[in-house]
Amino acid sequence: MVNSGLEGVVAAQTKLSHVDGERGELVIGGFPVGELAERATFEETTWLLWHGDLPSSRQLQEFRAELAARRTLAPAAAALVRECARAGADPMDALRMVAGTISLTSDDAATIVAQCPTIVAAFWRLRGGAEPIPPRADFGHAANFLYMLGGEVPDAERVRGLETYLNTVIDHGLNASTFTARVIISTGSDLVSAVVGALGALKGPLHGGAPGPALDMVFEIGDASRAEAMLRRKIEAGEKLMGFGHRVYKVRDPRADVLAIAAERMYTRAGDMSLYTLAREVERIALRLLEEYKPGRRLQTNVEFYTALLLHGLGLEVPLFTPTFAIGRVSGWIAHALEQRAANRIIRPQSEYVGPYRNLRYASLASST
Amino acid sequence: MVNSGLEGVVAAQTKLSHVDGERGELVIGGFPVGELAERATFEETTWLLWHGDLPSSRQLQEFRAELAARRTLAPAAAALVRECARAGADPMDALRMVAGTISLTSDDAATIVAQCPTIVAAFWRLRGGAEPIPPRADFGHAANFLYMLGGEVPDAERVRGLETYLNTVIDHGLNASTFTARVIISTGSDLVSAVVGALGALKGPLHGGAPGPALDMVFEIGDASRAEAMLRRKIEAGEKLMGFGHRVYKVRDPRADVLAIAAERMYTRAGDMSLYTLAREVERIALRLLEEYKPGRRLQTNVEFYTALLLHGLGLEVPLFTPTFAIGRVSGWIAHALEQRAANRIIRPQSEYVGPYRNLRYASLASST
Repeated sequence: MVNSGLEGVVAAQTKLSHVDGERGELVIGGFPVGELAERATFEETTWLLWHGDLPSSRQLQEFRAELAARRTLAPAAAALVRECARAGADPMDALRMVAGTISLTSDDAATIVAQCPTIVAAFWRLRGGAEPIPPRADFGHAANFLYMLGGEVPDAERVRGLETYLNTVIDHGLNASTFTARVIISTGSDLVSAVVGALGALKGPLHGGAPGPALDMVFEIGDASRAEAMLRRKIEAGEKLMGFGHRVYKVRDPRADVLAIAAERMYTRAGDMSLYTLAREVERIALRLLEEYKPGRRLQTNVEFYTALLLHGLGLEVPLFTPTFAIGRVSGWIAHALEQRAANRIIRPQSEYVGPYRNLRYASLASST
Repeated sequence: MVNSGLEGVVAAQTKLSHVDGERGELVIGGFPVGELAERATFEETTWLLWHGDLPSSRQLQEFRAELAARRTLAPAAAALVRECARAGADPMDALRMVAGTISLTSDDAATIVAQCPTIVAAFWRLRGGAEPIPPRADFGHAANFLYMLGGEVPDAERVRGLETYLNTVIDHGLNASTFTARVIISTGSDLVSAVVGALGALKGPLHGGAPGPALDMVFEIGDASRAEAMLRRKIEAGEKLMGFGHRVYKVRDPRADVLAIAAERMYTRAGDMSLYTLAREVERIALRLLEEYKPGRRLQTNVEFYTALLLHGLGLEVPLFTPTFAIGRVSGWIAHALEQRAANRIIRPQSEYVGPYRNLRYASLASST
């Protein structure tokens, strides 16, 4: 009766998102992801999840101002970002460490969401030998992140692209990081503790860590003419094709198309469609070969494949992919934490003991001899 | 079919500990807790959980040396402890924040266990306006913690008392913090991330946060002659009696007697049995009244009651209780993380969507108007 992955166990009721893996549907705060992600700002989607409804103009204006006012890191946090860069920390570890220090000044949902982009951008610049760029309060959340990364005022299309990405990944049922946040908050703990735990879970390659390799595969293939031979070789060697297959979705991940459209716009705007075209061709061939080699397994392109393409098109380097995922998902973690807190029961499953039974009469303690 | 507390769901097989709530039994690494806790050093119990067997003399010697060599905090961690004290951080938040920075230098199980006492002691001294006391490599784990807190060489009986406490709480099935660590590691993440998540869960008053109030109640009663009247008043006012009742144990918590014996020794040694005697009297009356007011509920003294008494007898102040619990439990978290990693499946339950279904055609985005 052990269910070590808790598959099929319903651990929470939620009004935040609905994942229908068989039908390939994702609902965010009541809206189909495709409708919402392409049009809403990240502030609106965050508000939607935290309050259950889209904000009015005035609420949106106030919420934008609230987030903008909380972007600057406290001195201790800024010092720790520097340490993380100096030590060559993993970018997700750096985000986890510095986000954890938000407890020094607050345990406020808006502060946590507001500061994640500041941490990631400052760490990234310091890692590359540049100084952090202070946030600008007149920019929205997505625009400000791009600004802090590169120092240029981002054009509206890049902002829209990032906004769409953040909205697309903001929530996704009880994934491992979201579940972590709910378990932590279920003990009566605080939001920063919940988010820090979730960041630790998202770091794991089985959860948030695969968008890099999906793009690597496309780069490795390099030219559409080589795609079929290389993909066949990989499948025959038993390699997993990165960017394909998902534990939940048995049809096309509903986020893939949203991201594909946003990516297409990004590359069209940049005037170089070669990578986008190659990726679509790799996808087409990969899906055909997966059906040929693993008939009935229904392996589909997953969100990571188009995440990689979109974020690359936005000018983000691979080590920033998972931290950027976190910048979107943190609003969902907090929404789940608030939802759990509002109707709480401590989450405490059981374990089955499969170890020995023994007795100190028949064993000896080295410390006593 | 929602099981929001995951009660009765078996989420892991483990060789680490076995909790039998109906029979009041706790097995740690195969041994009854009563046998092991009173005799083993914390290093031995930690080794037992990490390796499945008690260490030989040589293994124990090497493991003690390994832990002792890892006690000193890195400069960035030491600086953050100072920030935490200056900001008046919650002691569990401080431990979580600083333990999180271990990632700057390692992801090593021994380092994590070795540094938790250093963090707690340094924070506590700085909070009280004193300077941290550097660890001493010639002391064992428990002795060194007491030394770093007070600056005096602790006598053998206090060391034995703390050793017994740490062994008693080192592991306890899939409690919320241990489960958190397993969920985080199940994504392929690292040990520091898992421990940091677990620390966040242990902070919650529904999990690790109640030993303080249990002692407060005894202090509030103050004299055995007032116990019955005050306890009756509390029960009749619907107050929960702190230190009584446990979600798992329906008979006496097997850890209570271990801790009671250790506490008795501590107070006997100090030559003042008044608090100990009062606590036992409060316990006796509380159990009688609970049976009178809530017959059949089988409410028993839980581990928090005697934890408070023992730790107080050891000279620890109430805000140190949960961090000291963490210093013991961290070895269990790591053992579970290693066990999960060795036979991993990502832990990902499901949620049931109970929210609305709506459409942007019938809603308006403030950002688009």
